[in-house]
Amino acid sequence: MTEREDLIEAVTRRVLAVLAGDAEGECSDCHGSCASHCADKVRAMVDEGASRISYNGRGGEIPADLARYIDHTLLAPNTTPSSIDRLCEEALEYGFAAVCVNPVWVRRAVQKLRGSKVKVASVVGFPLGANATETKVMEARRALREGAREIDMVINIGLLKERQYDQVRRDIARVVDACREVGAVCKVIIEAALLTDEEKVIACRLAQEAKADFVKTSTGFGPGGATVYDVALMRETVGPEMGVKASGGIHTTEEAKEMIAAGATRIGASAGISIVGGGGADG
Amino acid sequence: MTEREDLIEAVTRRVLAVLAGDAEGECSDCHGSCASHCADKVRAMVDEGASRISYNGRGGEIPADLARYIDHTLLAPNTTPSSIDRLCEEALEYGFAAVCVNPVWVRRAVQKLRGSKVKVASVVGFPLGANATETKVMEARRALREGAREIDMVINIGLLKERQYDQVRRDIARVVDACREVGAVCKVIIEAALLTDEEKVIACRLAQEAKADFVKTSTGFGPGGATVYDVALMRETVGPEMGVKASGGIHTTEEAKEMIAAGATRIGASAGISIVGGGGADG
Repeated sequence: MTEREDLIEAVTRRVLAVLAGDAEGECSDCHGSCASHCADKVRAMVDEGASRISYNGRGGEIPADLARYIDHTLLAPNTTPSSIDRLCEEALEYGFAAVCVNPVWVRRAVQKLRGSKVKVASVVGFPLGANATETKVMEARRALREGAREIDMVINIGLLKERQYDQVRRDIARVVDACREVGAVCKVIIEAALLTDEEKVIACRLAQEAKADFVKTSTGFGPGGATVYDVALMRETVGPEMGVKASGGIHTTEEAKEMIAAGATRIGASAGISIVGGGGADG
Repeated sequence: MTEREDLIEAVTRRVLAVLAGDAEGECSDCHGSCASHCADKVRAMVDEGASRISYNGRGGEIPADLARYIDHTLLAPNTTPSSIDRLCEEALEYGFAAVCVNPVWVRRAVQKLRGSKVKVASVVGFPLGANATETKVMEARRALREGAREIDMVINIGLLKERQYDQVRRDIARVVDACREVGAVCKVIIEAALLTDEEKVIACRLAQEAKADFVKTSTGFGPGGATVYDVALMRETVGPEMGVKASGGIHTTEEAKEMIAAGATRIGASAGISIVGGGGADG
């Protein structure tokens, strides 16, 4: 069995576990060990293209600490100073892991959150990733100097597609190194919706080689957001130690729980309040 | 008559001129002096909201130098080095004003275009504009050092909406100053689709006060692109001397000619070849 087939097998098991709402790989159709028809079904869907996998998730209990998974996020270009203040107040009230804001708002968010457990995350090379490495490093250092303790950086997608892996890895590593200097966390956004499965796996490995803390699915500005399939694929690729952040299009408790079941350890969302409040599709 | 009414009157005349396909303000319905019903019609549309104005443009001849209006643009995050090469080759072949590329591709484009009249434009704080001024200046300087001769920068939209005009002007002026040092052109992207008419006018005035060379309608990543109405409004606001760049969603010769009739002196488009080739809606 090739490495690719091994990976598909593992991702299939993980997706099936999410389908079944448990960690045993039971199928929601047959509620049994489903090495047979269900695995084949998912594998066929994988072969046809990951984005076409759909499923009915079935959640268990809401994790008591669901709020601690959430980066409360506001990255729209028309974000005002007062909406940043509100974001921070909400993060304090609900106990989210972090707020995630554009660079120009870091100082303000840090002031609002001083003395709390809520961290400030900022974005770098966002959302296109097509900035010079030097600019990404400078932008990261600036945010860290102002008090950000998490940096979500976007890879150079075009260089990945042209298989310039050394350059992609170096671009990531330079930002990771800037984070390391102050003990901050670095998350690497691969913008999965623009990548083939092979490219997703390679991007995750490059992030891991560059010693990043997290891989992250999406910017929220690309053609698609987080999928259970991509989260499972990323988790299988990076193993159990590294963080996986699912972001983009996550609006409900149910969706957040599915992402966590698939392997996410952090959820990026502007709908954090709906998610922890148990809001449904309208939340 | 208030200043706002004066402006609406002037924009109305300009939009009517575009509607009529000439510079005399004739209406395409009555083909006469239309201070009456047509002006009222357009004014009513303006009052209801600029984006709802629709019209049937009627072009005359294609300007012989239409190619010289066009910034041949490729800003997608999955742009590869080889597609940058192709962009440059096309710009040389058709004689476009410039190529417009993300910062990481400036050096490559400059090398490809060396010795030609085609300039390299790069983007700064793109496409969200919510970067620190310091980062925008550094990113501009870097692109200029590598040979870019035009910089398209995005304003801080949130600060504009919160009426922090001094900060918005200073953010622009710092980038303009960096361009001036090397005799480069600075275009200021206001992302009109996110602004009210009042905010569009203020943004244009701030760009003018900061001594920018152009105002530009859109990033192409926002909720809408260039409209004839916005171009007319921007031209009326900045007067005859400053450049106006229409960008976002311009695909055909007809659309480009309407933008020029409304006051644009530059067109940003990925469809430049269709535009100069006279391609229609499918071009």
